[in-house]
Formats: sequence, structure tokens, C-alpha cells
Amino acid sequence: MISLNTVSFFVPIQTALQEVETVLHTQAENGQPDLRAALEHLLSSGGKRIRPVVGLLTGQMLGAPHDKLITLAAAVEMLHTATLVHDDLIDGALLRRGMPTLNARWSPAATILTGDYMFARAAKLAAETDTLPLMKLFAETLATIVNGELTQLFASRGVISRENYNKRIYAKTASLFEMATRAAAMVSPVDETIVESMRQYGYKLGMAFQIVDDILDFTGEQETVGKPVGSDLLQGLVTLPAIYYAEAHPNDPDVLCLTGGCYTEQERMERLVQSIRGSNATSRSMHEARAFIDQALDLLKTMPEGEERQALEELAAYIVNRSI
Amino acid sequence: MISLNTVSFFVPIQTALQEVETVLHTQAENGQPDLRAALEHLLSSGGKRIRPVVGLLTGQMLGAPHDKLITLAAAVEMLHTATLVHDDLIDGALLRRGMPTLNARWSPAATILTGDYMFARAAKLAAETDTLPLMKLFAETLATIVNGELTQLFASRGVISRENYNKRIYAKTASLFEMATRAAAMVSPVDETIVESMRQYGYKLGMAFQIVDDILDFTGEQETVGKPVGSDLLQGLVTLPAIYYAEAHPNDPDVLCLTGGCYTEQERMERLVQSIRGSNATSRSMHEARAFIDQALDLLKTMPEGEERQALEELAAYIVNRSI
Repeated sequence: MISLNTVSFFVPIQTALQEVETVLHTQAENGQPDLRAALEHLLSSGGKRIRPVVGLLTGQMLGAPHDKLITLAAAVEMLHTATLVHDDLIDGALLRRGMPTLNARWSPAATILTGDYMFARAAKLAAETDTLPLMKLFAETLATIVNGELTQLFASRGVISRENYNKRIYAKTASLFEMATRAAAMVSPVDETIVESMRQYGYKLGMAFQIVDDILDFTGEQETVGKPVGSDLLQGLVTLPAIYYAEAHPNDPDVLCLTGGCYTEQERMERLVQSIRGSNATSRSMHEARAFIDQALDLLKTMPEGEERQALEELAAYIVNRSI
Repeated sequence: MISLNTVSFFVPIQTALQEVETVLHTQAENGQPDLRAALEHLLSSGGKRIRPVVGLLTGQMLGAPHDKLITLAAAVEMLHTATLVHDDLIDGALLRRGMPTLNARWSPAATILTGDYMFARAAKLAAETDTLPLMKLFAETLATIVNGELTQLFASRGVISRENYNKRIYAKTASLFEMATRAAAMVSPVDETIVESMRQYGYKLGMAFQIVDDILDFTGEQETVGKPVGSDLLQGLVTLPAIYYAEAHPNDPDVLCLTGGCYTEQERMERLVQSIRGSNATSRSMHEARAFIDQALDLLKTMPEGEERQALEELAAYIVNRSI
């Protein structure tokens, strides 16, 4: 497994990423003091900044105007962080990346409003790129993410459906990766074919990223992932490893129990998690993630050669080899 | 007092407003079914649509392109409704305009996400006006509103300050009125002076609107307003009538109690509410609201004559004569 410290895909955009950080940290400058503190806390919580990185590399590879690219990358990360603030509140999560969440320290009211403020700042940043199609894309992506969360919230639990799963991980993760690469290409002096290829690259990267997350939910150790092993399934949420397992063992009593609506029986679900861990369901899921990555790498072949393209290749490889 | 049914300022924009309604009601078309139901509920809850009305009249008076104006008016109302959804959740309000709030019927999670979805749709509508400065204005206004709510949330209670009050009612109400008129002028074929005058018109209208709301909080009957009389003060929130009363009676023991931090003593605060109702503080506040309206009417004098200008004059008069 590769850790984030040993990866080199940051090199071509190190300075640019520093500029993005500066833009992010100035977003609450005119805000209420507690809001400023909250934003600092959120931005210092050790996010991997993978979405702005993928956007910066794409834009730099395709000759995007520098300032526009910085603003765009900041907008993407701000939108991502805003959605996490409301997510953690809704899930009642007290930790994220080992740090206390905002809702662990603040009232629900303050947490809701901080998320709203960050949406406003993300929209402002998107507007500052002075590119109307990008604004529309930004608003559409936010609607997709939120609609996905609502669907998940109201969805009946224990449903084993690839279609549902694919829609869910698109809304949750791939939509924003897709937006990052597509937007970066949109502001670059390139034709529609390149924009479409980079949109697809982002999409496939994002799909793989979420599948790996869902695999790590089963294979990771609680200390590393920061959640109980199989936490999704314990809430009745069926991810790809569980789908593969259920397809291979349709008559497993715990699988039947899951689809029968008894996901609340903790003991059975914990046993099912162990069954999935002991099966080839996770390696088959990883195979599916690798297929997305292979397709993403293929799309890069038509892109301008150079260190950015190489970094985007490394980043794709990192996605399926990370341990967290 | 004038009721909404007897006013004529709707006449010049009746058709346009119907188009705005249609745009609003189609915003959840691709959304999750419960979300569609929630949006229908929110949009049918009898809102006065005063913000889109003021935007439509301004744009029609100044020759704004019709489609752009409809989209813009819908964006303003959607943004307004979105902020109400989170507001009601934060305040734990169970009724608005006599109808159950979303949070009265739904979980906090669903309510948060519905608000988020509406922000996304408002941003999308703003982007569809194809006017970049308007997008920035939209994002700035959202940031102003949310920052104001956060300031109110963290503000120490019982503080008697005109400066705080003016900032608060600007963020809460005037900013969105200002945005509606300014944006409508921005998309019209007029020069900067007209845009600035109409921005000010919206600002003054909004300030007066909120002052009247705050007066009605004291003078209205619980059944009409839908909240206990003096509800702001009972939460330690000092509005204009309380400021006038405190200025005139600095040694009233209940005023001293309020500033001393004892706003939680229900009985004393209820007595203070009665004292304010019995004083000339509400009529002095109304005088201040009327001054804003007079300034707003002055600004209209330089605008093109016609039924829209007349309607904007009537609307200004309605603001200070309404009973709800």
C-alpha cells in the first residue's frame, strides 16, 4: 500500500496548491469570528485535497489560465468541505480524519449555518472564474450531490442493487471529481473532445475512489479507517463488496436476512461483515475499481505529454493502492 | 390596514408572476420523490412573493429582457425559501404562515438537505440568467444572509444597539430586497446611476419591511402573527421598538434587567413587552419605517413613468400599512 507521503503527483502543482490553500483560508475574512475559527478548523483537518489536485493537474496540462484555475480548484474544495459539514451533522459523526467534526463541538444551528456559509463562498469562487457554463456546472453538481444524499436517506435499507449503488457513488463522489476535471478543461484552450475525455477521466477516477473507500470499509482496521469495520452494512447500506458476496451466496441466511429487512440485527450483520471479509468479494470489487482506473489511464493517452500527464497517471494508480 | 387582497401592485406583473411560479414548481422535477413533495409544500405555503414582485416590477419598468427577468425573480424567491427552511429548523418553528414547517413533519436530516437542494437550484437559476455580475451578487447575498444569522446566533442577548440592529435587519431582509431590485436593473438596458438608485430603493424597502415586521411582533395579535407577542424580546433579541423604549426609559427596572442579562426571566420580559406596547415606541419605530419609505419613493421619481413605477409606489406604501 502506498501512503500519501510517498507519492509524487503533487510535484507539478505544489506552488499552485499553496495558492489554493491561501484562497481557501481567506474565505471567512469578513465573517463572524466564530465562523472564521470554524473554517480554520475545517481547513486544517488534514483533507487530502485530492479534488483540487486533480483539477490543477488537468488545467495545467491543458494550459488553463493560472488564476482561473486556482479559483476553480478552491471552489471545488470549498464545495466538498461544505457538503462534509452537513453530512457529519446528519450522520452524527464526531470524528473525521481523526479530528473532531464541527458538530461534535458546536450546536446543530451553528453547524448548519457554517455549511450554508461555505456553500455561499464556494458559489462566489465559482462565479469568480468568470465562466458561466462553469457556474451552471457547479450548481448542477451541488444539486446532484444533495439529491443523492436525500435518495440515500429515504432509500429502503438492505436493497441489493448495482444500479442504486452506481447512482449513489456517482452522486456522492464521482460527480465532484468529474466536475473538477471537466471544469479545468472547460477553462483551457482545448476543443470539446478533450473536455469530454477529461470529464470521463474525472468520472472514472471518482467511481474508483469510492469503490476503494467501500472496500476499505470492510478490509481496513477500525483504527485506520476511524469507523467500525463494515459500518455501511451495519446501517443497512449495501456497497459493492456486499453486492458481490450476495451474488455469489444468494442463499446465505444472513444475506436473506439483509434483504428481508433485518439489517438492524447487529449480530447477524457483524457475521455477514466477517463473511464478506473472508470471501473474494473485496478482491472482485477491487478488480472493478482497477477497470475504472485502466479506462481512466486510456483516456490520458491522447493528452499532451509532460509531467502533469504523468502525475495524473500516478494519481490514478494511487487511488487503487491507497490504504486510507 | 391594507390586506394583500386589496392591493393593485400585482396587476402589471400578474402574467410574469405566474411564469415565475411555473419555474419554481419545476425545480425539483429530477429530484427524489419526497424532495418534490417537500418543495411543493414549501411553495404552496402562501408566501407573499414580495421579493420576486419587486424584482419583476423593477425589471419591467426598466425594459429588462423578459426571460432573464423571470429566471432572476425565481432565483430570488428560491433563495429566500431555502433560507427559511434552515431558519425554521434552527428556531424549532413548527408553523410558518399558519402551515406546518418542513421540520415539523420531517427529520432534521431531510430538512437540512432540502434546504441545501434549494440553494443549489437557486444558484442554478441565477446562473441561467447568463449574467456573471449577477452570479457574484447572488453568492455575496447568500453569504451576507448566513453571516447575519451566525452573528445573531452567537450575539450576546439583551444588547441594545442600533448599529447591531441595523446590521441584523440588513442581513436578514434588506439584502435580498436590495438584490432583487439591483439585479433586475443590472439586466436592464440602463446606466449605472439607475442601477444604483434601484439598489437603494430595494434596500430602503427591505429595511422598512423588517422594521414593520418587528413592530407587528409587538402590536399584532398572536393569532395573526402566529407567534407570541414580543417573541423576539422573550428570546433576548432587541428590535427597534425595544430600542426606542429603552432610550426613553433608561432606568426602567425591566430595561436594566434586560441589559443585565436577565432576559430569561419570562415574567419580567412579558411585563417589558406590555410596557413597550403601551408606550410610543412602536409609533416612533413606524415613523422610522416611513422615513425609509419616503426615501424609497423619492428614488422612484427619476424612474420611467408608467404602471410599473406606480405599482412600485403602491408597494412601498403597502409595506408600512400591512397588518401581517
